[in-house]
Amino acid sequence: MNHLRIKQQLEQFLIEDIGVHDISTNAIFPAHRVGEACFFAKETGVLAGAEIIKTAYQLLDPTLQVDVHVNDGEEVTNGDIIATVKGAVRTILTGERVILNMLQRMSGIATMTNQAVQIMQPSNTKICDTRKTTPGFRMFEKYAVTCGGGYNHRIGLYDGVMIKDNHIAFAGSIRQAIKLVRHQLGPMVKIEVETESEAEVNEAIDAQCDVIMFDNQSAETIAQWQKLVPSSILTEVSGGITLENLSLYRHVEVDFISLGCLTHSVQSLDISLGGM
Amino acid sequence: MNHLRIKQQLEQFLIEDIGVHDISTNAIFPAHRVGEACFFAKETGVLAGAEIIKTAYQLLDPTLQVDVHVNDGEEVTNGDIIATVKGAVRTILTGERVILNMLQRMSGIATMTNQAVQIMQPSNTKICDTRKTTPGFRMFEKYAVTCGGGYNHRIGLYDGVMIKDNHIAFAGSIRQAIKLVRHQLGPMVKIEVETESEAEVNEAIDAQCDVIMFDNQSAETIAQWQKLVPSSILTEVSGGITLENLSLYRHVEVDFISLGCLTHSVQSLDISLGGM
Amino acid sequence: MNHLRIKQQLEQFLIEDIGVHDISTNAIFPAHRVGEACFFAKETGVLAGAEIIKTAYQLLDPTLQVDVHVNDGEEVTNGDIIATVKGAVRTILTGERVILNMLQRMSGIATMTNQAVQIMQPSNTKICDTRKTTPGFRMFEKYAVTCGGGYNHRIGLYDGVMIKDNHIAFAGSIRQAIKLVRHQLGPMVKIEVETESEAEVNEAIDAQCDVIMFDNQSAETIAQWQKLVPSSILTEVSGGITLENLSLYRHVEVDFISLGCLTHSVQSLDISLGGM
Amino acid sequence: MNHLRIKQQLEQFLIEDIGVHDISTNAIFPAHRVGEACFFAKETGVLAGAEIIKTAYQLLDPTLQVDVHVNDGEEVTNGDIIATVKGAVRTILTGERVILNMLQRMSGIATMTNQAVQIMQPSNTKICDTRKTTPGFRMFEKYAVTCGGGYNHRIGLYDGVMIKDNHIAFAGSIRQAIKLVRHQLGPMVKIEVETESEAEVNEAIDAQCDVIMFDNQSAETIAQWQKLVPSSILTEVSGGITLENLSLYRHVEVDFISLGCLTHSVQSLDISLGGM
Amino acid sequence: MNHLRIKQQLEQFLIEDIGVHDISTNAIFPAHRVGEACFFAKETGVLAGAEIIKTAYQLLDPTLQVDVHVNDGEEVTNGDIIATVKGAVRTILTGERVILNMLQRMSGIATMTNQAVQIMQPSNTKICDTRKTTPGFRMFEKYAVTCGGGYNHRIGLYDGVMIKDNHIAFAGSIRQAIKLVRHQLGPMVKIEVETESEAEVNEAIDAQCDVIMFDNQSAETIAQWQKLVPSSILTEVSGGITLENLSLYRHVEVDFISLGCLTHSVQSLDISLGGM
Amino acid sequence: MNHLRIKQQLEQFLIEDIGVHDISTNAIFPAHRVGEACFFAKETGVLAGAEIIKTAYQLLDPTLQVDVHVNDGEEVTNGDIIATVKGAVRTILTGERVILNMLQRMSGIATMTNQAVQIMQPSNTKICDTRKTTPGFRMFEKYAVTCGGGYNHRIGLYDGVMIKDNHIAFAGSIRQAIKLVRHQLGPMVKIEVETESEAEVNEAIDAQCDVIMFDNQSAETIAQWQKLVPSSILTEVSGGITLENLSLYRHVEVDFISLGCLTHSVQSLDISLGGM
Repeated sequence: MNHLRIKQQLEQFLIEDIGVHDISTNAIFPAHRVGEACFFAKETGVLAGAEIIKTAYQLLDPTLQVDVHVNDGEEVTNGDIIATVKGAVRTILTGERVILNMLQRMSGIATMTNQAVQIMQPSNTKICDTRKTTPGFRMFEKYAVTCGGGYNHRIGLYDGVMIKDNHIAFAGSIRQAIKLVRHQLGPMVKIEVETESEAEVNEAIDAQCDVIMFDNQSAETIAQWQKLVPSSILTEVSGGITLENLSLYRHVEVDFISLGCLTHSVQSLDISLGGM
Repeated sequence: MNHLRIKQQLEQFLIEDIGVHDISTNAIFPAHRVGEACFFAKETGVLAGAEIIKTAYQLLDPTLQVDVHVNDGEEVTNGDIIATVKGAVRTILTGERVILNMLQRMSGIATMTNQAVQIMQPSNTKICDTRKTTPGFRMFEKYAVTCGGGYNHRIGLYDGVMIKDNHIAFAGSIRQAIKLVRHQLGPMVKIEVETESEAEVNEAIDAQCDVIMFDNQSAETIAQWQKLVPSSILTEVSGGITLENLSLYRHVEVDFISLGCLTHSVQSLDISLGGM
Repeated sequence: MNHLRIKQQLEQFLIEDIGVHDISTNAIFPAHRVGEACFFAKETGVLAGAEIIKTAYQLLDPTLQVDVHVNDGEEVTNGDIIATVKGAVRTILTGERVILNMLQRMSGIATMTNQAVQIMQPSNTKICDTRKTTPGFRMFEKYAVTCGGGYNHRIGLYDGVMIKDNHIAFAGSIRQAIKLVRHQLGPMVKIEVETESEAEVNEAIDAQCDVIMFDNQSAETIAQWQKLVPSSILTEVSGGITLENLSLYRHVEVDFISLGCLTHSVQSLDISLGGM
Repeated sequence: MNHLRIKQQLEQFLIEDIGVHDISTNAIFPAHRVGEACFFAKETGVLAGAEIIKTAYQLLDPTLQVDVHVNDGEEVTNGDIIATVKGAVRTILTGERVILNMLQRMSGIATMTNQAVQIMQPSNTKICDTRKTTPGFRMFEKYAVTCGGGYNHRIGLYDGVMIKDNHIAFAGSIRQAIKLVRHQLGPMVKIEVETESEAEVNEAIDAQCDVIMFDNQSAETIAQWQKLVPSSILTEVSGGITLENLSLYRHVEVDFISLGCLTHSVQSLDISLGGM
Repeated sequence: MNHLRIKQQLEQFLIEDIGVHDISTNAIFPAHRVGEACFFAKETGVLAGAEIIKTAYQLLDPTLQVDVHVNDGEEVTNGDIIATVKGAVRTILTGERVILNMLQRMSGIATMTNQAVQIMQPSNTKICDTRKTTPGFRMFEKYAVTCGGGYNHRIGLYDGVMIKDNHIAFAGSIRQAIKLVRHQLGPMVKIEVETESEAEVNEAIDAQCDVIMFDNQSAETIAQWQKLVPSSILTEVSGGITLENLSLYRHVEVDFISLGCLTHSVQSLDISLGGM
Repeated sequence: MNHLRIKQQLEQFLIEDIGVHDISTNAIFPAHRVGEACFFAKETGVLAGAEIIKTAYQLLDPTLQVDVHVNDGEEVTNGDIIATVKGAVRTILTGERVILNMLQRMSGIATMTNQAVQIMQPSNTKICDTRKTTPGFRMFEKYAVTCGGGYNHRIGLYDGVMIKDNHIAFAGSIRQAIKLVRHQLGPMVKIEVETESEAEVNEAIDAQCDVIMFDNQSAETIAQWQKLVPSSILTEVSGGITLENLSLYRHVEVDFISLGCLTHSVQSLDISLGGM
């Protein structure tokens, strides 16, 4: 992640929670009181966002000392110490909630992504995300997906072309839609086409798109369509895939399966601050 | 919600997704092409965030016409039309994803909150939220909780005092912690104390705090402690409550039960844009 | 005060004054020229904002050395050195005006608040502020009030309920207004009611609000009404109180007296930079 | 004032006060309730900032109707209606405090400036402001000075050169300081020199600066020095001038007298919202 | 271009020029004075940025009426009227310079791009831009390139992979560098490789990158290398190409030629505001 | 330049280019890899913006070590090392493009300005800039002009009065326009008048403006008009001056010649990062 953007967004997040000041902590702890605490896991999962602890505390108080003991992408289990913090007690407590909110959500995403990755073993199919992220929080969520072993689809509407049913309907055909788009594209942008029938798959292949999405199809159908596609074109399965039904797609040999639930319906990983 | 803040944050959210421009849509649809579409529910739940549709589209293009058919807090079921939009097809498609991401997450929260509210019927205990929200998105999530029939706990660290175990440990006693805090408080701030034993409950009562939290206790313990508290002090149950175990607390007669999961581990409500 | 917000606002304040650059100082002093100077009081008053000196100079140049000799809330008199600064002369001079503008205004507020606090001695009545602050500068002004021994009323419209005459008129009665509000409040928000007659005071007591304000009443009337209010409800006097008439209210035994003039009509405390 | 900057700063000011929402007003008034109210003066003074009423309300709700009846710079007396507002009661009440805070402070400045202008009648000496403004609020305060008949000195450190004692000391002489500065200036920047002795006045005249400031001198001294200065150089009196001692300088015939108190120690003009 | 970003950046640009206010125009023209003026070309070129005129003036004053007579990408010649503006003279004059600065620079870029496109006729080679843009102004400059008939290369470091010499040196080989990158890429990102020898071209082909750049080579060399590359891989020529030497590459049959000078060394197109 | 504004704008510029992250570099270089590189000139010119290298890299990573070997305003020739950088290779490469874009453009402006300054030798006429700058980048461009030996005209519309033909036409005469303006000006603002005939020059002299501009006149005419102007009024030549025709004005003895081309039509100076 771009460190400058992390800092800018963290400032905003910390101000959202702290406002004019943390009245409880400032009333009870004097400014000079120092202490030590640690962030530790309370359940098993994959960590994402360890850098947040350091950056957030440094924004609040550059003299706070943070040691991170687990790398992003590594597994933690109940009781594992993720990081230790030493310094002003006020700062440690004031930053706690925002840091936990980020760590827990990001690690929840990494953990769920990793479960999806495990389910797909030993196939070569990769797990990827979607644009169904929490507004304002996309960079962190997409990064968390990679910590879990997943891959990022488009960052936004600006860095890849996705031709959907209503684009095709308006253009008249997949071929025509791709032609319109290619007419405006520089050398570095890929074109993906959503397909809903074998005819569309064939049309997309003929039009030489970069990626073909099989949208909302059964595993059987997908397995058949996949055989039609040359290796120079990537394939993606999307639409209604969850951890529950994911294993059905293990043998279809597509390149990517994208799961919206990785970012829109995730359980936080239980992480806590303690030992102070 | 403060309309000015909605607009400011929506601008940021839309720019996060659109970047320099929506290459797919702009390549295929000419600027003058108009159309009509609707946002509709694909499953049963409680709506939250209808105002977002209007505000987001007006930021992108003030000539777009948006009619909202369901109010926040009302139930929708599969197929219900939430809003219709008429105007430039480019704008309708470009704004779609951000609007859906907000509506789906907010309605997911409202729906889960409402389930919690239903479980607590017919007791007088109210459901409330926590500060365990997605960073940068708290205003929307806390509002969604109220759409589901829940109540808001503190907005942040600045608008209420919460005295926790480490505050008490440092101050020496609940009484001393409250004294320290009250010494700095104006007339409009409430003090809540986390208690973990009957002795602490009694101490908190003596010290005349405004709210007592029973932290991580069994329903039986809570029922007993609740009887000790005079009606002038509000009570709150917190810690590890989920939709699964919530019904255990239906008969304990506390004033509020707070659930972190309402905002940190929620399923999106399935909503879609269609009919164009 | 939240250090992150201090920094963000100071950046804005310094840029407001410096613009593209300080032409006078940059033309005369070479970049490498170092010097030493001090901020000192030119009249007697209570200091507020010492932290500003350090933070402002560190934003402009982290190598500048600032030593603060007086704590916020302490009295200074003519000639007292508040802080000494060593480092690049350019930076010392370029930051001077903004720092003085803040220190002087904040210390003026602390001084006036302290005068009010002294006037109320030896009663238990506390002095508090209002929302009548300079737009964009509220956090600093409310903090300055506490440096002078005063207390903060609401931070804004979001962290406390104030039921005024037109709310009551529309709702039909104080009881009905409180009922409407309480129906939407979580556990941590207080309700204050403005009263203008004994009947209203009694109604507010019956409706169990948290704070009763006696609005624009004579000291005699207030003394009488105060006797009606149980100790579980706080009382506040407001409306047209100044340092001139404040002593009239010394014996009325209310909990708080709020003064708009503390923030809307204050004299700066005379502070200067010298000795370079 | 630059309308774009007014809007940007008003957004910030309104969000400072409203936060996530106005809980009192939203709980009592339904969204559809409309009403009418007016801003009126409660004492005599000079109005400044009428445009704020319109702009602030339009930011909150473009359907609100605002009619302004008094122009900036005109006198108002107790009971004069400044503006009437029609529309959603919620919006009228939610915006009230920020608008009043601005109007009252700006009109307080205009009124005090006007008093200074009256005191100087019938001389040709003009009243002007300083950089001793409230941080973040300078544009509004400097504009208010012009509404009262005053003039603006430098906007900041970037649009005019002011050579002070420590500049002169370092450069070696006024002549040398001006030479250093002029060496770096384009055609559009003026140079003012602070003088504290007749010798300095003569040196400044010889060095052909644009403005000479007589710093902290008695009226008699100033009257003498003024005679030395050719009409091609403007003169300014500064330092410790208040409304109380201003009349002493009525006959010294300088071009400008600057008063820091116009912006750092002003009484708000009493203005209220009523009639709803 | 994303209309929301245009507005945000235009606000910043207008405030950069106008500051607190346009002293000249406000002093001379009364607020109610209306007039009419037009933007017209003073030399031949390709227009880019017509939308700026409307958006900028609407930010300053929504009642101003702007009619645009030429579309982006169309040729204008000396005397051609690009747009007419009616409304407050103050606003017309205050916005003039920023609008012209944008129109002139963007049209300069479009014109130079178009000259490059003409030079490459009748080959199929497309002209594209680079990341050598003016910081903060990239969106406008990249859009202007498309108005001139050119294409956009990467928007930034985030939407495409470019493997350069130092990447290759560190990774050990092109194959290894691509492997490292591909290991982290989702389905929608393209990989371009800079090549400086025939061996590198062959290695890049073997490694199946998406685009091969021939960096700083003679037209003859490029023509040879181009023959090695299969049609499934795009080719780009880059490095030191200007309008002067561009025609040398007309017959090399590559897909794209990128020119840094289109954005880093461009002549403004002469456009003026007149007729008022 | 104001260091705080440099940092704020650099943050924006770096985020514009880096977005969520630099995918190429992060995929190939591990975080701990350190290296060394240098910025060096590839052609002869005048350097401007050396401070940018340090500030940009410190924003990205405070541990990066930057040593600058050439001062702004000094000449560099092909091969000259401007600065060396040591530290994380990722950071060195990620910041490269934005730094080069700034250095190259700013040095291009300094170089062109210096050429103009050389052409005017040995006259006393100074070269100055205009407001024809790239929107959002003005502070950097105006600073670069001074590095080349030029001077800055107005920063914007707020720090100097320029009376143009349409101001004069509306006011009725130059005298009347100046009177209107002077009526609103404080002591520190200069007035410049554009003149297009000898009569206008004489009128401007009579009205005692501060600067007279000879707009779009031949060198002969200017030489004549210049003789009319007393030494207390500065003169400026403007309109269509380029490096090609500048020498024609060497003997006209005006104070300033302003060139729009210095900022609107400049060639970048070729600078590169290498040696890693």
